[in-house]
Amino acid sequence: MNRFLRTAQLKISLTLLALFLWLLIPLAADEGLWPYNLVPKDYLAKKYNFKVTDDWLNHLRLASVRFGGASASFVSPDGLVLTNHHVGRGAIQNLSTAERNLIKTGFYARTRQEELKCPGTQLWVLQEIEDVTDRVLGSEKPGMSAQEVLAARQKIIAEIQKEASEGSGLRGQVVSLYSGSMYHLYKYKIYNDVRLVFAPEEEIAFFGGDPDNFTYPRYDLDISIFRVYENDQPLKTPHYLKWKSSPLREGDLVFCSGNPGSTGRLLTYDQLLFLRDVNYPFTIANLKRRQAVLHEYARRGPEQERIALNTLFGVENSLKATIGYNSGLLDKNLMAKKLAEEQAIRKAVAADPELAKEYGQAWKEIAQAQKEYAAIFKEYMLFERANAFNTVYFNLARSLVRSTAQRDRQEPAGMPARMPAEIHDDFEIVKLTDSLKLLREQLPDRQETRWILGDRSPEEAARALISGTRLKDPEFRKQLAAGGAEALNLCNDPMVKLALLVEPISQGVRERYEKKVQAVETKNGTLVARAVFKLKGTSIPPDATGTLRLSFGVVKGYIEDGRKIPFQTNLAGLYRKAQEKNFQAPWSLPESWLKKKAALNLNVPINFVATIDSIGGNSGSPVVNRKGEFVGTLFDGNIQSLPTRFVYEDKISRSVMVHADGIIEALLKIYDARPLVDELLGK
Amino acid sequence: MNRFLRTAQLKISLTLLALFLWLLIPLAADEGLWPYNLVPKDYLAKKYNFKVTDDWLNHLRLASVRFGGASASFVSPDGLVLTNHHVGRGAIQNLSTAERNLIKTGFYARTRQEELKCPGTQLWVLQEIEDVTDRVLGSEKPGMSAQEVLAARQKIIAEIQKEASEGSGLRGQVVSLYSGSMYHLYKYKIYNDVRLVFAPEEEIAFFGGDPDNFTYPRYDLDISIFRVYENDQPLKTPHYLKWKSSPLREGDLVFCSGNPGSTGRLLTYDQLLFLRDVNYPFTIANLKRRQAVLHEYARRGPEQERIALNTLFGVENSLKATIGYNSGLLDKNLMAKKLAEEQAIRKAVAADPELAKEYGQAWKEIAQAQKEYAAIFKEYMLFERANAFNTVYFNLARSLVRSTAQRDRQEPAGMPARMPAEIHDDFEIVKLTDSLKLLREQLPDRQETRWILGDRSPEEAARALISGTRLKDPEFRKQLAAGGAEALNLCNDPMVKLALLVEPISQGVRERYEKKVQAVETKNGTLVARAVFKLKGTSIPPDATGTLRLSFGVVKGYIEDGRKIPFQTNLAGLYRKAQEKNFQAPWSLPESWLKKKAALNLNVPINFVATIDSIGGNSGSPVVNRKGEFVGTLFDGNIQSLPTRFVYEDKISRSVMVHADGIIEALLKIYDARPLVDELLGK
Repeated sequence: MNRFLRTAQLKISLTLLALFLWLLIPLAADEGLWPYNLVPKDYLAKKYNFKVTDDWLNHLRLASVRFGGASASFVSPDGLVLTNHHVGRGAIQNLSTAERNLIKTGFYARTRQEELKCPGTQLWVLQEIEDVTDRVLGSEKPGMSAQEVLAARQKIIAEIQKEASEGSGLRGQVVSLYSGSMYHLYKYKIYNDVRLVFAPEEEIAFFGGDPDNFTYPRYDLDISIFRVYENDQPLKTPHYLKWKSSPLREGDLVFCSGNPGSTGRLLTYDQLLFLRDVNYPFTIANLKRRQAVLHEYARRGPEQERIALNTLFGVENSLKATIGYNSGLLDKNLMAKKLAEEQAIRKAVAADPELAKEYGQAWKEIAQAQKEYAAIFKEYMLFERANAFNTVYFNLARSLVRSTAQRDRQEPAGMPARMPAEIHDDFEIVKLTDSLKLLREQLPDRQETRWILGDRSPEEAARALISGTRLKDPEFRKQLAAGGAEALNLCNDPMVKLALLVEPISQGVRERYEKKVQAVETKNGTLVARAVFKLKGTSIPPDATGTLRLSFGVVKGYIEDGRKIPFQTNLAGLYRKAQEKNFQAPWSLPESWLKKKAALNLNVPINFVATIDSIGGNSGSPVVNRKGEFVGTLFDGNIQSLPTRFVYEDKISRSVMVHADGIIEALLKIYDARPLVDELLGK
Repeated sequence: MNRFLRTAQLKISLTLLALFLWLLIPLAADEGLWPYNLVPKDYLAKKYNFKVTDDWLNHLRLASVRFGGASASFVSPDGLVLTNHHVGRGAIQNLSTAERNLIKTGFYARTRQEELKCPGTQLWVLQEIEDVTDRVLGSEKPGMSAQEVLAARQKIIAEIQKEASEGSGLRGQVVSLYSGSMYHLYKYKIYNDVRLVFAPEEEIAFFGGDPDNFTYPRYDLDISIFRVYENDQPLKTPHYLKWKSSPLREGDLVFCSGNPGSTGRLLTYDQLLFLRDVNYPFTIANLKRRQAVLHEYARRGPEQERIALNTLFGVENSLKATIGYNSGLLDKNLMAKKLAEEQAIRKAVAADPELAKEYGQAWKEIAQAQKEYAAIFKEYMLFERANAFNTVYFNLARSLVRSTAQRDRQEPAGMPARMPAEIHDDFEIVKLTDSLKLLREQLPDRQETRWILGDRSPEEAARALISGTRLKDPEFRKQLAAGGAEALNLCNDPMVKLALLVEPISQGVRERYEKKVQAVETKNGTLVARAVFKLKGTSIPPDATGTLRLSFGVVKGYIEDGRKIPFQTNLAGLYRKAQEKNFQAPWSLPESWLKKKAALNLNVPINFVATIDSIGGNSGSPVVNRKGEFVGTLFDGNIQSLPTRFVYEDKISRSVMVHADGIIEALLKIYDARPLVDELLGK
């Protein structure tokens, strides 16, 4: 089976001969974050002699869980759900207080009565996929502008989602694949009663901290375990993953089932340039300043450190990821390859009058959209993406404003801003102050900036906003929500007023973005994808969209700087690494692991890598063997994997998993969690 | 024919006997601003032995013209339109510059070529009235809330208006009568090419100025004459008023056809209390400060005086009127009478279980609405009515914002804010500064006030807004209008941003007003009106609504403080008054009138009074005799007429007219306007 080979070696000096040769090169790599209804069964059969049956696929799909923006899986018939510690982190943090810091101490519910309900945590399970491409694309009428096409699609999508949700007890979500070439309706069952069963101490879950994040070898027990309840009883489900029944060996075929957030492999060269030259530099600088501010706040004391840590973790994770993605774009060879690939396609399109007529303008229009985006990028990030108002109160206020405002268009399903379990006004002031500084630096002459700051310093303005808002009062929020737009408009709460003040510019920039950027990219991205289809005559994997995907690869070490990196690490390596670092944070070990070292079999593997294609959002994904048995949970990629956001490669890029054996060994020997282990092992 | 007698003498100590007596007292007065399809023909026949024929009515209606918010009439078959000078004033001012001040010098086009086109001036002529009550009231479904009833009515009204306008070349307007008991569709023909033919000097048009405004005896040539063109030719119309062919004598029955703006005779006692205690005190104080600011600006020099005068005229006129209206409400006897009338009705309603069930709560609900109104009154006036942003730029900005915003509900037809012919930034700064001061005084703690002012003085803020806005640039306005909401939201113009900033609070207060005040008043006002109908079994005249009405009365002097005031004044009186005042402004006379005095027949009448029912908006109304001939144009009421806004009376309340004879005498002898006179007299 031929597939669109993005890793092919291509001469920059393209001749037609080279072009046709390239178009004929057969696919060899395991690229692909595959929708469950597009899994390349022939490829798997041919290359791995593995027959994908519908039963195998359906079982894995129904055992896969969407957890926030990330992934998880059912691992027992009584509703146990296993994910990463850093995926469950928000829920665990919400259960914590200054007196009971579960992030730090970890948690284990020895009995079901001790399991802790996590308010606001929702788990989604994909029940069904339906192809609605014809219905969605049928909404386009001849002569429509790019914006009208987008609006028509949004309308029909909203209708389809509404129909799917009504009466079914499921939530419908229409997913756009291949830049809008294909539309599939995903129907989710949603579970709202989720309880914490187990979490290790952060020190072992995130051993190595930010320095080791996105690196390998690793030694992290990055897991947390929850249980789903229905009607106040543990969920009974046949669709759970059995624990591995045989050893995991290098060369084994493994599968990963999760919700990768977004890749940009079908982006055009100009879109990559925009990311490299405009978006990522801004984003990286912004994350760095947030990181600095959070560190400074955390240094004020242990309580402040606890408060800041969750946010800091997210910021540092994003920062490292973004720098990693960008490293691909800064790689001249990689960019030259992307350009060459694109030029080959464009030449082939240009050479055929019919193709040229239909697809010839698409790349140019996308290039123009990048210019339009650059012109409004600051306003878009600062106002619409609220980079200038970095406080939970603003999110709450905006959510109130937007949900109560009469809107014509139906928005795709989104989570409403939720009240965090704890808010600390001094922390909010620190964050808001810095983001108002950013606003003043970036857009000093914007009238909105002037209204908001006047002659005040960012800190004065932030203090007035945070100390003045009554949004912390649940009664007040209830009144506002009940009173609708009228109550919001009439109230005198400074944060609500701030959200109202920036709403017009935010709306203006969003409309401009949707019209001049998004709509143009959607329409022409579809054309580019179709052109590639026509030329290649085979399927290529679609970019990730935060929905359930299956990827696969082999368990395999790699060579880095001439040094062989083994496919797995073990518990002995963990203690060795901690020793090397003198047990200094972030390589310190929790009390439990120091005390109970002797009880452990240090040969038990803790982490391993595979060539599995993955990206952010795959965190917590179950990884299974041919039998569909749980062999580990994905929690990271090595630093070399980050540029695969734009170009897949499998020589040195690896996904990193917590090994199933390490989980059992730790639960038994460190946490004395025999009942939990019995449940996992089905004993 | 019995009519609801509001002037009846009623004992405060009401007994049931007194109540029934009062309900039986026959109507004797000439009260009524009558819609053309509800003219009390029987009453006129009985009392005045005057038979109103359809031809007579239709002719007068089609000769009547709506000029801005006021009145005018066709007075020649070639489209001449006569109105007051103060009604035409805006159009005349728009044609003026520092070099050519037509307000001061007057104007006369000796030939048609010299007639000056008045950009933006629109004249409306009522072509047809259709009863749409059933359709409008049919929109109310059982169980609807007051607000839903209002929304349903607004929706059906918008539909009816749209239908009426589509394809007909006419503009449809649905008029609510008797507080929403009756709905009539008015269809207007609209003329857009209006040219100035004649205007006297302001000194004679507004002789006596503000001190003499709302007084009598008067000596004003308060007229201006325009001509309507169609296809660049003078409009040919059979529907014009012939000039009077016989002398006008005391006791003569006369009719007035114009567009009275609003009366409040059907208001409940609590509504009157709201006006007296909340609305009028605020309005009067606000007008007084505006008057002071304008006077101060005018004192800077003759050019500033010219600039300020038009606005000042409007402010002083409103001030005097409002104080006059309020004088009625401050009159304890009048209020006691209103209360007694209302209590009589309420007792009669309460005495009948069926009536009590249907109408018994109406007064209470209206009273509650007054409390709701009082709670938001400041915000309503300052933000929604823009009392805090007194500059033409704000009107322009808001008009742009509102017209481009996507709105669900269709608004009743309103004039878009028009660019005045001249704008003077120093004048705008003065006005805006004072209104921002008002905002700071009245609502210092409103977040919007704080955003707008920050630490700046109102003058600094006003200067920044006025000097920063590019709304004076027609190209910029065109771009904004073309770019829609998106362009407005993205632009950085401080005035546009101000309009956007206050839009939410403005919208909130408007919605609250519509829901808690207007809807309740509409619904319950209808109930009150119906209750009165049921009890009286006869028709009463509806309150004025700014639409075409016919009123009538007799030419008649009156007694003031024991002194007889004759029904008319003459030119001799004019010169005598000027002499008495030493020709000091505002009793100075123009050069022309000083020079040509000898040519005049000083016995010719200039102004006269009649018992005609009228109110603001009737300015410029033609007054005709039994033959339908033009005998004068209404331009004022005496000070005693102001309280008739709430209670009609005809002993001392008078409408004041410019006499037809005075017009001819002045045109001939002072202005040497023989061709114009020939056209008016049909020679």
